Amino acid sequence: MLRFLTGGESHGEALLGILDGMPAGLKVDTAFIDKELERRQEGHGRGDRMNIEKDRARILSGLKSGLTIGSPVSVFIENKDFSIDKLPEVKKPRPGHADLAGLLKYGFKDARPVLERASARETAMRVAIGSLCKLLLRELKIRVLSHVVMIGGVESHTSSLSFDGILKNLTKSKVNCADKASEKLMIEEIDNAKEKKDTLGGTFEVIIDGAPVGLGSYTQADRRLDAMLASSVMSIPAVKAVEIGNGVESVKKLGSKFHDEIFYSREKGIYRKTNNAGGLEGGVSNGEQIIVRGYMKPISTVMKPLRSIHLDTKAAVEASVERSDVCAVPSGGVVAEAVCALVIANALLDKFGGDTVTEIKRNCENYLKDLKL
Amino acid sequence: MLRFLTGGESHGEALLGILDGMPAGLKVDTAFIDKELERRQEGHGRGDRMNIEKDRARILSGLKSGLTIGSPVSVFIENKDFSIDKLPEVKKPRPGHADLAGLLKYGFKDARPVLERASARETAMRVAIGSLCKLLLRELKIRVLSHVVMIGGVESHTSSLSFDGILKNLTKSKVNCADKASEKLMIEEIDNAKEKKDTLGGTFEVIIDGAPVGLGSYTQADRRLDAMLASSVMSIPAVKAVEIGNGVESVKKLGSKFHDEIFYSREKGIYRKTNNAGGLEGGVSNGEQIIVRGYMKPISTVMKPLRSIHLDTKAAVEASVERSDVCAVPSGGVVAEAVCALVIANALLDKFGGDTVTEIKRNCENYLKDLKL
Amino acid sequence: MLRFLTGGESHGEALLGILDGMPAGLKVDTAFIDKELERRQEGHGRGDRMNIEKDRARILSGLKSGLTIGSPVSVFIENKDFSIDKLPEVKKPRPGHADLAGLLKYGFKDARPVLERASARETAMRVAIGSLCKLLLRELKIRVLSHVVMIGGVESHTSSLSFDGILKNLTKSKVNCADKASEKLMIEEIDNAKEKKDTLGGTFEVIIDGAPVGLGSYTQADRRLDAMLASSVMSIPAVKAVEIGNGVESVKKLGSKFHDEIFYSREKGIYRKTNNAGGLEGGVSNGEQIIVRGYMKPISTVMKPLRSIHLDTKAAVEASVERSDVCAVPSGGVVAEAVCALVIANALLDKFGGDTVTEIKRNCENYLKDLKL
Amino acid sequence: MLRFLTGGESHGEALLGILDGMPAGLKVDTAFIDKELERRQEGHGRGDRMNIEKDRARILSGLKSGLTIGSPVSVFIENKDFSIDKLPEVKKPRPGHADLAGLLKYGFKDARPVLERASARETAMRVAIGSLCKLLLRELKIRVLSHVVMIGGVESHTSSLSFDGILKNLTKSKVNCADKASEKLMIEEIDNAKEKKDTLGGTFEVIIDGAPVGLGSYTQADRRLDAMLASSVMSIPAVKAVEIGNGVESVKKLGSKFHDEIFYSREKGIYRKTNNAGGLEGGVSNGEQIIVRGYMKPISTVMKPLRSIHLDTKAAVEASVERSDVCAVPSGGVVAEAVCALVIANALLDKFGGDTVTEIKRNCENYLKDLKL
Repeated sequence: MLRFLTGGESHGEALLGILDGMPAGLKVDTAFIDKELERRQEGHGRGDRMNIEKDRARILSGLKSGLTIGSPVSVFIENKDFSIDKLPEVKKPRPGHADLAGLLKYGFKDARPVLERASARETAMRVAIGSLCKLLLRELKIRVLSHVVMIGGVESHTSSLSFDGILKNLTKSKVNCADKASEKLMIEEIDNAKEKKDTLGGTFEVIIDGAPVGLGSYTQADRRLDAMLASSVMSIPAVKAVEIGNGVESVKKLGSKFHDEIFYSREKGIYRKTNNAGGLEGGVSNGEQIIVRGYMKPISTVMKPLRSIHLDTKAAVEASVERSDVCAVPSGGVVAEAVCALVIANALLDKFGGDTVTEIKRNCENYLKDLKL
Repeated sequence: MLRFLTGGESHGEALLGILDGMPAGLKVDTAFIDKELERRQEGHGRGDRMNIEKDRARILSGLKSGLTIGSPVSVFIENKDFSIDKLPEVKKPRPGHADLAGLLKYGFKDARPVLERASARETAMRVAIGSLCKLLLRELKIRVLSHVVMIGGVESHTSSLSFDGILKNLTKSKVNCADKASEKLMIEEIDNAKEKKDTLGGTFEVIIDGAPVGLGSYTQADRRLDAMLASSVMSIPAVKAVEIGNGVESVKKLGSKFHDEIFYSREKGIYRKTNNAGGLEGGVSNGEQIIVRGYMKPISTVMKPLRSIHLDTKAAVEASVERSDVCAVPSGGVVAEAVCALVIANALLDKFGGDTVTEIKRNCENYLKDLKL
Repeated sequence: MLRFLTGGESHGEALLGILDGMPAGLKVDTAFIDKELERRQEGHGRGDRMNIEKDRARILSGLKSGLTIGSPVSVFIENKDFSIDKLPEVKKPRPGHADLAGLLKYGFKDARPVLERASARETAMRVAIGSLCKLLLRELKIRVLSHVVMIGGVESHTSSLSFDGILKNLTKSKVNCADKASEKLMIEEIDNAKEKKDTLGGTFEVIIDGAPVGLGSYTQADRRLDAMLASSVMSIPAVKAVEIGNGVESVKKLGSKFHDEIFYSREKGIYRKTNNAGGLEGGVSNGEQIIVRGYMKPISTVMKPLRSIHLDTKAAVEASVERSDVCAVPSGGVVAEAVCALVIANALLDKFGGDTVTEIKRNCENYLKDLKL
Repeated sequence: MLRFLTGGESHGEALLGILDGMPAGLKVDTAFIDKELERRQEGHGRGDRMNIEKDRARILSGLKSGLTIGSPVSVFIENKDFSIDKLPEVKKPRPGHADLAGLLKYGFKDARPVLERASARETAMRVAIGSLCKLLLRELKIRVLSHVVMIGGVESHTSSLSFDGILKNLTKSKVNCADKASEKLMIEEIDNAKEKKDTLGGTFEVIIDGAPVGLGSYTQADRRLDAMLASSVMSIPAVKAVEIGNGVESVKKLGSKFHDEIFYSREKGIYRKTNNAGGLEGGVSNGEQIIVRGYMKPISTVMKPLRSIHLDTKAAVEASVERSDVCAVPSGGVVAEAVCALVIANALLDKFGGDTVTEIKRNCENYLKDLKL
């Protein structure tokens, strides 16, 4: 079983993470982790912080000679901007953020201690940890990507593209969008919003390719893979809805038009022609690509400030404004890849056990061989 | 901390549930539980099984003289149709169900053992357990309702209605819809689908009224209340998307139009004029109504059968057809009320501790008094 | 991962248990479960309740045609003596029991609701659930026994006996003791105590034979197998100490005399000549027999009552006396077998994964083969 | 709920720990943490490593201006001796250590990666984390101490001493023993063992003073406080038995001589004259001092090496010898204080909830006031 905890404030000394339960024998490429951290920081619409922090993960435990040893992997990301005890109080809580609810919960007189932890900066650590899981998934030939499917009302059109096709189109995209035409419009929307001192949200999609049939279970509510994915993706700041496959559209469709019929051919074995279910039936992976979408609300810190109150006087004021982004949907997708990779890696360990990469691969291969699909 | 496990197959002897962690001193009204079970079985579009089973919960432990005693509450619901070992094999797996993925996972030769547990019948127990949590919430003046906001493409319009207004309109609705005009159209859609031997999905909304500010936390991913609600609602069979507040719409809005500004008046204290966030900011309840929506795909068992394969021969066949519903969105909402009540009750215990109802109420009241909102 | 919850009061309608996570394909022999329940009820020194209850487990879910199907297994044990709402209040809390602490914690005016759940009757369900795990262990050739090694100061001498030798000696023992001579003295001690209206404790030992090397882990505190065993055995009512191998004696020994040296021969592979460590080094099974001892205090209900107070008046009184045993160490051992079987089964699933018995066996065999010990 | 994970190898770059769930508003005195770390390193019989490492905890998250803010507290302890990738292979596994079992489990060719994590060095982090919990306990006037009650067969005699009496006697002890006469003999035993190139074990006792009645619960096996304490203390390296109160002695006593009778006086309220139960009845704290003992086997690394095999050749060899201690029982006690403090702090949060120190104290005080003991 994989477990993790993260620690760290936005302007604290560092972000910390401990990932417990990684099997032994996994070669860890720290350049890959740093590349993932970089991907999280990119995207048209990101704010100034991204120029200050160039996140680099230092792995402080769990490795020997570059291989995991079954021990907890500890990750350390330094904050360049370490100033938590010098920053001003935040007395004018910002709508959309945890500011007000958080300070009431924890008995603070201002929102500074809240926003330091509620900040999306914490997700850098989830990306680092998730990238370790991606390395494990790679060993089982499972790949994970995310792409942006909507920003500011502009949708991308990618239904004709394969996993590799999407991947290829993403390489040069400034908003991690696989549809060139839509990308241009999305960037315009971001620029418009920026000019208006406003912010935007959007939708990202995570695709997991190569996951074996049989991950997760319908036998108890919290063993369902869809429930775990929903929880993980919803826990990303700003995400306000999570969808498996074509879940949102499904409510307008007839059953006969929605469900993915089952076919067989000697070449392909059992297969589907459609994947509306997003690879999950009854909470269990069915061998198709697993598709999860996250809906991100517009960034809560609006430069043209929203109305709020002063905590001490209760007077009507403009909300505080912290350094922030205009749009962070591409980053949201990168974080979602990480947390989905964690969920899938955990489901693999649950099904195949295994304290070593060799053992997991062997157990998985024997299972698949036995299925004779 | 509340925990629960359920057991039971669709045509097994009974459904069982154990709810561990209920505080002592809660008066348990079994008539209320049965009423909730009845609500789950109702709704235009339900199938024949509903006429066979009239669910009644027997509480076998955790009560003395009608009051909880802090011990695990065990619930037993008898199945009238107990025939699991006599029912035929299911060799033609049904698209949309766990049938195929489940039998491969567990090494079965047919899907019968899968569908017996993956059946939505299991949710009766979640309703029973959740109704116990509702009784606890009541003590803290927290109320939970669900209503249907879309079936087969027909939306309800209830934005002008208060919690009590919705509640009132639901009493006579056959599809648990608070908008009379839409209800009529929804019923037509269901009847049309039935005639075409097809099925429908739709969207339900759960509203939790009266939850105090400060439930859940932004401090660790899995402590967020939105993540817990997402997991719980996604774990309901057929739910393929979960939304907090206006999460799906949010992706098309500017930040300045989405976030719920903060106001203060001597009479109301701190308040909001809008609730797009659905009562959750940064994963923490903010004192507004908590609003969660679940998107249910159309029922997977279509009477005009979908294409499938025979497990033994791999020949193309029509999928098996089990007794089923045309539309079960109203029921989905009732189940969602239950699982959301569980999440909220758990968050209350986490924040206020308390082994007795008296203690929880006292701790909660002292917290609220101290906030001086 | 295996999880379980139990519910049920001593004089409630029934005991309930749900065991979640059992792999599919295990043949369940209910006669075996009942035999285990019977073993729990036996032993010289047990009280009258044992004549009233002849526990029989009814399995209400998780089976089809006598095989597990991966779904939660629900177990139901009826209480013959169902009278919880009629029994008198207990106003004179009994020292040694949860009575006083429990009623203060949960805000009761008397101890009745406490003792109904704190009663050792609950352990019948743990035996039922553990016996299911034993059936799983059997498939992997892992056996579990318990025997009494001390009652009332009388020790048994069994160091010369093999696992099978102990097992054989136990068949006719009235106190589950493998040493005939000691058994006689133990029975005398029990009879003496009974005559004096007093009670006795003692020590049982659980031996697990055939567990593969590599269960549990040193990598995180709560992954250690010794920690899990300690928690499980300590959670048995009346157990006040838990020992792995010769843990208590070890504190008087030099390292050179305690640790189990490592040998190799072509016939035996790697082996040990001693097993002071009780099969666990660094919290990990080392391939030797796993040995766990539980120390049970004397039964708390003494017929010659202990001094207590009346809850209402605070006057000095004699403590209440409920129907009880003189000595229940043999039963304690049976319960300990059950909870240890649960821990071992869980550790196996953690290491070997597997949703089916076939899969677990295959994964385990391949692991062992690869070790080439 | 408190949770923690630790990471770090004995000769890795650092030890890391994340403690999740600490309430806000706790003043953190890092000098106190360092003092606790120092206490862990002390004691007659410790080896050379103690001269190399002077542990200092750096808190990298969860604090603002010296106060906790409800966010995870991350702790970093640097290893002076950072050399993991340069250290030689360990091909001759040491009896008593995880060496052999660990390398087989994780598929290593030598034991180096095992001993790096299985090393007791990891307990430094548990001490750091536990010391944070001690600070929380202090706010509720709960104190924790440990003292050595046996080394190498020499027992201490402290039954006549109060908590403060023991504490006072410990200040100058080199083996954390409160009995001057015994201390002298213990030191002699250690010196003798050292001279013989041998090692010693012993027993420590943790006493928790001031814990309120009602922590833990008898309602489910894993909610019992005794089970949690057993698990935590057994997870300390070298601990092979855990005892609550006079658990080991209890098996030789009659019930009438063991159980702690209940008394009342106007001055003291409800009280006991004895505490054989070690403050726990039915797994629930009863308001008396909670007493837990850990039995540590002799240090496994013996300088006069034990017999082992060479992993490659299987030839009989002397086991590897790593830098080690002769006796570490005083340190074991310090670690046990830490893990017990964690368990108690967690039980307090479970009972009293509370996101802030103020809230927990208020809830606890109101509970105690209401008991009118």
